[in-house]
This record gives sequence, C-alpha cells and structure tokens, in this order.
Amino acid sequence: MGRIVVIGGDGFCGWPTSLHLSSLGHEVTILDNLSRRRIADELGAQSLTPIVSPEERLAAWAEVAPEKGAVGFIRLDVAADYAGLRETLAGIRPDAIIHFGEQRAAPYSMKGEAEKRYTVDNNINATHNLLTALVALGLDAHVVHLGTMGVYGYDGDGLEIPEGYLDVLVPGPGEQLFARSILYPTNPGSVYHLTKSLEQLMFQFYAKNDGLRITDLHQGIVWGTQTEETRLHAPLINRFDYDGDYGTVLNRFLMQAAVGHPLTVHGTGGQTRAFIHIQDTVRCIALAVANPPGRGERVRVRNQMTETHRVRDLARMVAAVTGATIDFVDNPRLEAAENDLRVSNRSFLDLGLNPITLSGGLLDETLEISGRYADRCDMSRIPARSLWRQEVTGGEASGLRMTA
Amino acid sequence: MGRIVVIGGDGFCGWPTSLHLSSLGHEVTILDNLSRRRIADELGAQSLTPIVSPEERLAAWAEVAPEKGAVGFIRLDVAADYAGLRETLAGIRPDAIIHFGEQRAAPYSMKGEAEKRYTVDNNINATHNLLTALVALGLDAHVVHLGTMGVYGYDGDGLEIPEGYLDVLVPGPGEQLFARSILYPTNPGSVYHLTKSLEQLMFQFYAKNDGLRITDLHQGIVWGTQTEETRLHAPLINRFDYDGDYGTVLNRFLMQAAVGHPLTVHGTGGQTRAFIHIQDTVRCIALAVANPPGRGERVRVRNQMTETHRVRDLARMVAAVTGATIDFVDNPRLEAAENDLRVSNRSFLDLGLNPITLSGGLLDETLEISGRYADRCDMSRIPARSLWRQEVTGGEASGLRMTA
Repeated sequence: MGRIVVIGGDGFCGWPTSLHLSSLGHEVTILDNLSRRRIADELGAQSLTPIVSPEERLAAWAEVAPEKGAVGFIRLDVAADYAGLRETLAGIRPDAIIHFGEQRAAPYSMKGEAEKRYTVDNNINATHNLLTALVALGLDAHVVHLGTMGVYGYDGDGLEIPEGYLDVLVPGPGEQLFARSILYPTNPGSVYHLTKSLEQLMFQFYAKNDGLRITDLHQGIVWGTQTEETRLHAPLINRFDYDGDYGTVLNRFLMQAAVGHPLTVHGTGGQTRAFIHIQDTVRCIALAVANPPGRGERVRVRNQMTETHRVRDLARMVAAVTGATIDFVDNPRLEAAENDLRVSNRSFLDLGLNPITLSGGLLDETLEISGRYADRCDMSRIPARSLWRQEVTGGEASGLRMTA
Repeated sequence: MGRIVVIGGDGFCGWPTSLHLSSLGHEVTILDNLSRRRIADELGAQSLTPIVSPEERLAAWAEVAPEKGAVGFIRLDVAADYAGLRETLAGIRPDAIIHFGEQRAAPYSMKGEAEKRYTVDNNINATHNLLTALVALGLDAHVVHLGTMGVYGYDGDGLEIPEGYLDVLVPGPGEQLFARSILYPTNPGSVYHLTKSLEQLMFQFYAKNDGLRITDLHQGIVWGTQTEETRLHAPLINRFDYDGDYGTVLNRFLMQAAVGHPLTVHGTGGQTRAFIHIQDTVRCIALAVANPPGRGERVRVRNQMTETHRVRDLARMVAAVTGATIDFVDNPRLEAAENDLRVSNRSFLDLGLNPITLSGGLLDETLEISGRYADRCDMSRIPARSLWRQEVTGGEASGLRMTA
C-alpha cells in the first residue's frame, strides 16, 4: 500500500475514490480548492444530497473506519498555487497521484466567455503544473488522470473505439502501406472535452521527454451516487447533481421523475453514450493505481466505461420504472442527432472488473435518493441552458460541420 | 485591402510582417505586450541589431512610407488582459488577425519550471482568449496563426509530411479498410512545440463548433534578418538573436563565425530541419491572408518552409564561406541524432511563392550584419544552456523513448 494524493478529492468522483483507496489501506491526502462547491454557489444549484464540510466528512470517515487511518485534506488550488503544490508533493512524496482537479461539466464550459476561459485556464494549468512539479522534484509518482470518452468524439462510423491508440496504415510511395500506432485522433465536442484532448498531448510529451509514468482514463458518463464507503455513514454521502450544467443525463431523468416533471430528451435522443456506475469508477481507479505503466513506456490509456446506451432508451427505462412521461426538446448542443458507439473496455475487464450494469437493479438506490431528497430539488435548475453556439455575424448554420 | 490586427507585431516575424502588410495597403494595428524585449532583458541577451522603441520604429515607418498610412500600436497582453483584447477587437473589427503572440523559443521553454509554465500559460491563454473573443463578438475575422513544423516531430520514417492532414486507412472488421483524413498526429519535441500542438486542437474545435475561419502555418526555422521593408531605414531593422535560447541555428553559426568562435554543432549535426528566409515568411503570410478558408471549412494548414538541410551541412556551408572551424558538442536536446525530412509545401508554391534558397546568396546580407554589429555580441550568450531533461530519481536514460 502506498501514499496517494487525490487532487480534486472533494468532488463527485474524487470523494468516493479517496474513501475507497483509504479502505484498501492507502495513505490518502486530498488536495482540493473546493471549486465544485464554489461553482454550485455561483450557479445556485446545490447537490440534491446534503454535502457537509470537508472537515465533517473526514471526521465521519475517521469514525466509521478508524483502522484505516485518517484521510488528510489540504485546501490548495493546483492551477493557481504552483509553489504550494510543489511544496506539498515534496513533503508527501506520493507513490501515486490521482488527478481529478478540473472543471468537468461540458455545458458549464460552453456557458459563456468566462466559463470557457476558466475551463481552459484551470484545467490546462492544473495539469501542467502537476507535470512540471513532478519533473522538477524528480518524483517518480504514477499519475492517474481522469479523462473522458468525449475526446474520441461520436462520429458513429461503426468501428470499435480502441483504448487510446489507433492502428492505422499510412500509404507511402508505390503501393506500400506503413503501419503506425497513433493516439486516437480526437474530436472533442465542447471546451471541456477539448481540455482533455489537450492534456492527452501533454501526457504524451512528458512521458516521452521525462519518463513520467501516466495512466489516462477515458471515462464514460457516470451514473449512481453511492459506493460501499459513502454508504457507511450519512455525512459521507456523495454529491447528486441534477442541474442543467453538472447533472449527468441519468441523474437528471431520475430527478425529473421524482418531482413529477417529464423527462427532457435533447433532440431525438438518438445519441449513444458510454456509461459507468460510480462504484465501478472507484474500482477502476484502484485497478489503474495497482497496474502502472513501466518507466519509459508510453501513456497507458484505459477506457473506463462498462456499457453504452442511447439517451432515449435511458429515458424509456426510467419512464417504465417511474411512470414519468417523456418530452423531446431542442438540443442545446452541437452533436450528431444519432450515432452508434462501440467501445473496447478490455483493459479493465482483463484486470478483473465485474461491471455493474443498468439492468442490475442499482437504479433503485438512485431512485430512492432522488425521492428521499425531492423536497431539496429546485426545479428551475433542471433545464440545460448553456448553448453550444451563438449566431455569428454573416454565419450560416448550414455551413457548420457537425461531429458526424 | 482590409483591416489587419497583428498580435505580437513587435517580434522577429511580427515586425517585418506588419510592415509588409502595410506596404501592401492593409490598415495594420499591432497588439504587443513587448514580452520579447522583456525576456531579452531577463536573459541579458539583446538582439545583435539595435532595436529602437516601438514608437520610434513606427515613426520611422511613417517617414519612409507615408502613403501607406500609419501602422497602429497598442500595448496589450492578450493572454492576461481579456477585457482589453475584446474591447480592442470590437473597436477595430478586423478582417484578419495574424497571431504571433506566443513565447516561441524551444530552449527557453525547457529552461526550468518558470519558463515551462509561462510558455504553456501564455501561449494557451493568448490563443484561447482570441478565439473566445471572436465567438463572443460574432466577429468573422480570418485568424492566421503561426505554428511550427515541430508539431510533426522528426521521426524520419521517410514519408513526405503533408500539409496538416494525413490520409490513413483504418482496418475494420473483416478485410475492410476505412479511409480517413486526420490531423497529422503530433509529436512535439519541447514544451514550446507542445503548445503549438495543443493550439492545433483548439483551432479544430472552434472551426467546427463556431465556424471560425482559421489558417495554421507550420513554419520551418527562419533564417535571415532583413526584408524589403525593414531595409528601408535604419530604425526599421529587424531583430537578430544569436543567444542559446532565441538564436536559431543559422544565425548562431553566422554570429560565431563573425566573432571568430568555432561553430558549435549539437551531437552529430545529423538533424534535418526545414528552413525559410524571413522575406519568404512575410510573403507567405500575405498569401495566407489573401486566401482564407471558407466558413464551415476545416482549418487550413500550410507548411511554411522552402527547403530542408542537415545541421552539419549548414555548419559546413558557413565554414566554407567564413573560414570558421566546427566543434561538435553534446546535444542539450532530446532528439534523434540523425533524421531524414521530406515536407510538402505545395500549398504556397501553388499560390505563387518563389522561394529564396540558402544557395541564393542571401547569406551575404546576414553575414554582413553579423560582422557590422560584432562588437555588440556577448559571446557568453552563444552556448545553449537549456537542457531538455534533468535526471529523474530512479530513472534510466536507456528507458527513455526518443522522438525516433
């Protein structure tokens, strides 16, 4: 077991990951600037589940799992306070660093100028500061970064999306074909997804130039709320975001059902996306930590998802369970109306992941939570209001290239 | 003729470009934070040629070319002052924006933590601020960005490097091959080159999502000093950097020859690189401005280079002309010792570019300048001292993947 730093360990994925790694016996230190809480305040959109202060959360964990040792917490802005980050890493000298320290909502990243600029500035500098500090300190910590399936784009050509690298043939002189293995050409659909595409190139460079050991996890859309550890005590409960910016599609449908609102499907709902339950997220991260790439190896990319669904099928599933109706509304995003999606997740299956699937009944728990806290719901926050595109002077929408 | 904003118009490429566009009849406004001058002070490495203040430069231009109208100058940090950038663009509403506003020296970008972080923070935010402002203002200006040949990497597999996009075949089910045209997979060799790779993805996104019209110029190493316009009057003279960070290879050889120092070749000098004369740089940019992509088209990438040479052949050429000797020294960079390089530059040739080549005698002018100002040379600044890699704890140099 080792020393692990979790950057962004107060967030939706970071918090249950920190507890899970602690329960496995790792010494965990959370670095977080509490930006997720700040943005929730800014948007006036709080987690449906009541989230207590970091100190109360950690005290609750120490209470239920005293034999695991305390999880440490340091309030630090990794993007803005390089000296603080460097000093902290020099003091801890972690074996692994899990990096969730980024603005992670695509709609928020498209909301306006300030949000676009914040997302790029924060995410790029957070990641680059981390890489720079590791090199400067000569610290051989394994970096496990949360990326997104969205870097691949959703162009629906029917080919299976591999794990990070694409084998291609490049035509050369004569009839010759040259085989190459390249980073999958990214086609991000939002400024948020763009930042993850940029970071992928940063990782490639720092692995090559400085021998850093990096795992990049291209995660699907997370559903569910609780994990084995967050379930242990009320103050440990995980976030449940249902607003138009931070709420992911399944959670928003469940919330709408709980408060008697029709399920709002964007466009035709023909978008196929990859999904994973939050419990599998934390398991995958533990598996990634336990299986680092060797020094000098290229970045290890793993697809962190377990199944794919069409959005309208999700809506129908939730409608069938809850009796809710479905509304098809205009799509605020620029994306293909319909796409297929086939994804390889061989890498985690080979490491022993036994996926939790949507049909597996775990919908019940999330449904129970959305019902239990329905009185905390602010229905005005549910609609997605961030538009992907403003009209541009002289522009023609028809000239726009979609992701397809 | 149109209104053109030149971001970074005080620098080595930006200044002669601004004058050239003005001489063609465009209304030019330079935005510059004078960072090149600041960094020269920081490094204690001044241009060999005496560079007067922006105001004196512009007054000299108004004097020699009064019929062209004044070139405007606004001191502005595009990366740090978004409100200023937005307001300026809203006021000018340019038809085209030439974007040189980036830290552009690979060795400087590898010097240390501060320089790595500055390069990423400055370059990424400058570029993203520009794109964000154009979208927010609904401004359909053609963005012409100076990229670098270095994004392609120098892996020497013998295939010709196309202009930005690579045609590949992706093996699918059965024996099927799917044809795709993808952004050339980048393999940057320094933090500086990395930023240009990141920006390429930003351009892809903003062209797709917002219909921005963008040309990305992947430029080779520039040689030469003067252009038709900078030659017109002494205060218009262009920069001549010869220091280990900002001096490009040919200029450094010429400087070394002028002061009687052996020409220092890194490694075997077997590195093949692409080159272009500064006069052709400004011509290419004018051609790019005159030939924008249409709205809704993908980013237009053009290779802005005219010939390739091995570094040791350049050294021999300079030695033959000047009688200098050659020293082979350790290579501070991590790069393949020897590589081939074949590059397509069809796009500019088709637009009528008639390249100036090294054998064309223009070496004489640069040689004359390095001789004329040799007494201003600080020889202690010539060696390249920025190392590409520190030793990492537990690391093995042998495990490192080179660019090859």
